[in-house]
Amino acid sequence: MSHATPGTPDRVHLDNGGRAPWHPLARQAFEQALADGWADPRRLHAEGRRAVRLLDGAREAVAAVLGARTQEVHLTPSHTASLHSAVASAAAARRRAGGTVVASAVERAAVLHAARAAGELSTVPADRLGRVDADAMVSAVRAPGVALAALQHANGEVGTVQPVEAVHEAARAAGVPLLVDAGASVGHVAVPQDWDLLAADPADWGGPAGVGVLAVRQRVRTAAVGPEDEDPWAPGGVSVPLAFAAAVALQAVEADRAEQEARRRALVDRLRAQVARIPDVEVVGDPDDRLPHVATFSFLYVDGEALVTELDRHGFAVGSGSACTASTLEPSHVLAAMGVLTHGNVRIALDRATTADEVDRFCEVLPDAVARVREMLGVGGL
Amino acid sequence: MSHATPGTPDRVHLDNGGRAPWHPLARQAFEQALADGWADPRRLHAEGRRAVRLLDGAREAVAAVLGARTQEVHLTPSHTASLHSAVASAAAARRRAGGTVVASAVERAAVLHAARAAGELSTVPADRLGRVDADAMVSAVRAPGVALAALQHANGEVGTVQPVEAVHEAARAAGVPLLVDAGASVGHVAVPQDWDLLAADPADWGGPAGVGVLAVRQRVRTAAVGPEDEDPWAPGGVSVPLAFAAAVALQAVEADRAEQEARRRALVDRLRAQVARIPDVEVVGDPDDRLPHVATFSFLYVDGEALVTELDRHGFAVGSGSACTASTLEPSHVLAAMGVLTHGNVRIALDRATTADEVDRFCEVLPDAVARVREMLGVGGL
Repeated sequence: MSHATPGTPDRVHLDNGGRAPWHPLARQAFEQALADGWADPRRLHAEGRRAVRLLDGAREAVAAVLGARTQEVHLTPSHTASLHSAVASAAAARRRAGGTVVASAVERAAVLHAARAAGELSTVPADRLGRVDADAMVSAVRAPGVALAALQHANGEVGTVQPVEAVHEAARAAGVPLLVDAGASVGHVAVPQDWDLLAADPADWGGPAGVGVLAVRQRVRTAAVGPEDEDPWAPGGVSVPLAFAAAVALQAVEADRAEQEARRRALVDRLRAQVARIPDVEVVGDPDDRLPHVATFSFLYVDGEALVTELDRHGFAVGSGSACTASTLEPSHVLAAMGVLTHGNVRIALDRATTADEVDRFCEVLPDAVARVREMLGVGGL
Repeated sequence: MSHATPGTPDRVHLDNGGRAPWHPLARQAFEQALADGWADPRRLHAEGRRAVRLLDGAREAVAAVLGARTQEVHLTPSHTASLHSAVASAAAARRRAGGTVVASAVERAAVLHAARAAGELSTVPADRLGRVDADAMVSAVRAPGVALAALQHANGEVGTVQPVEAVHEAARAAGVPLLVDAGASVGHVAVPQDWDLLAADPADWGGPAGVGVLAVRQRVRTAAVGPEDEDPWAPGGVSVPLAFAAAVALQAVEADRAEQEARRRALVDRLRAQVARIPDVEVVGDPDDRLPHVATFSFLYVDGEALVTELDRHGFAVGSGSACTASTLEPSHVLAAMGVLTHGNVRIALDRATTADEVDRFCEVLPDAVARVREMLGVGGL
């Protein structure tokens, strides 16, 4: 039984959704921007002007990847902050149209919480694969009193890609802006173009945490919701070096995205097939129309926290449960909405650096780890 | 006429209030925390546990300097965010007591804006030196319907230290919590102990921008004001490496703070005396009870933006106007409240690395720069 030490080469980190290690070029970019862009970008002197050039350059680079104009791209303190601001601001601007925010039941908790805070939340169900019911969402968007609709590009917990195009078409026709949470997909698959507001997460694509991206099409009305500030999307501003590192990381991952997509999709295919052989397991999420790097499993007769801990002891870091909402393993609202097992859940998100060998080693270790946890729980004989 | 290139040794940066270069140890701390703490601190595996240890260590170190308990220290996305959250949250918790926020007229714009957003703002005047009228503030705090009082420890634009102790005593007696904005003072003078909520700014003490500090005494009631989130003070969390760098920078500057305070106070004394010899200048702020590193001047017959630009061309970066609120040089509400000249304003904030030689060179260059700007404006003969 090997007890790999964290940080040693033996350690395999398979929990890269939402917080991946920095891309090496992000690191370099940060160093450069810290040397050149430490000053306050609001100042008029040479140091301030250099900082604002770096910040504007970061926004321009992100805009190019997102298919947006530079002035449509805003930097925020975090992906959660992007979602909170987008919902609050777009809903407030359309208060006269009504107070309902239509969102899928498998949206990130930040969207659902922000929708409840902004008005009335109307949720649209997802099927057992995690796919949102496009017809139901289209009907909900067409109902009277809708201020905003929110649909993720792909679900970060289970990988399922959502019918964003169909929903956006209906939303446009109904005059309702659509917020697309692309926090789990940008950097991994092609960026969707069917959106009015788009949130993306640098920490998910190999950029830093502590900065978020929110793009708002110029045609979309927004309203300031917090206290007056020069930058309503990030009161007090963001870290220039972090923003620059985020943009450089995005450019870098876009450069070989297709290749990485194919490579990681094949690894996940292998992983899904291997894990399916373990007794009493449910392989979760759409088998085909999914993120290339995410794989999720629910094991019967297993406690998720115990399994994460057991795998951790053997050198493998994995996610579990409602990864985006809780430090403790509360049952995931996404899995619950899908009607699948909410306990005994493990989520794998492969990094760009994850190797086939690492995936194979994980597949070797997992069955025994599951068996041991089942034994501990006294269900080994089941 | 020398045109110093930005980034060259000839360049002298005298605009270190609110955004100083990183302390060298902050840089080292960032590197270490990026290697050890890049993972999501909410996760259960070894990488997540390492990240949360770094984050908790940062809070503990900051708490020790602030004279607070670790659990009283919260990390936020920026100093502005700290002030917004503190005002909104403390005022919301005392809504039944009333909706008035008492604040000095020379508070940071973030406090004044947040107070207006939270309820009714009642401002207390300051005198010509920038000192808040303690008696007036005590009376205002004792009035019925006050939810919160806000008083800065020292004014970042003009350096004047405020009567925080007297106001806190009256606020305690009246049962009104006092928010102290110590964003311009922590790291430069002894941390005040007379507060219920205290905001401090890492970017001002040689730590990074992109993270803020808000301490809330355990006895103070607060209410969540945004959408529900695991961390209501920083939805989505903060950058662990930035937080760690901020804490290490604070420890480092505290280690020789007294020495740096005396050294920079002497330099500012010299600067104030030299500048006072220039015709038609007002040396702004309290001459004695002030921050050790800040010096502010208003020149008659001078446009502030033109003077900043002229000094910049000669290799000196200085601040001007309402430095904390505007990219363009809107008249400073602080200077206006003091009843001093709001135009032709220059603010110097010495870094810990600023040398006597640099201050002397600035004093040599300034008179000619002022004269040239006056000539350009056609008032050279006045």
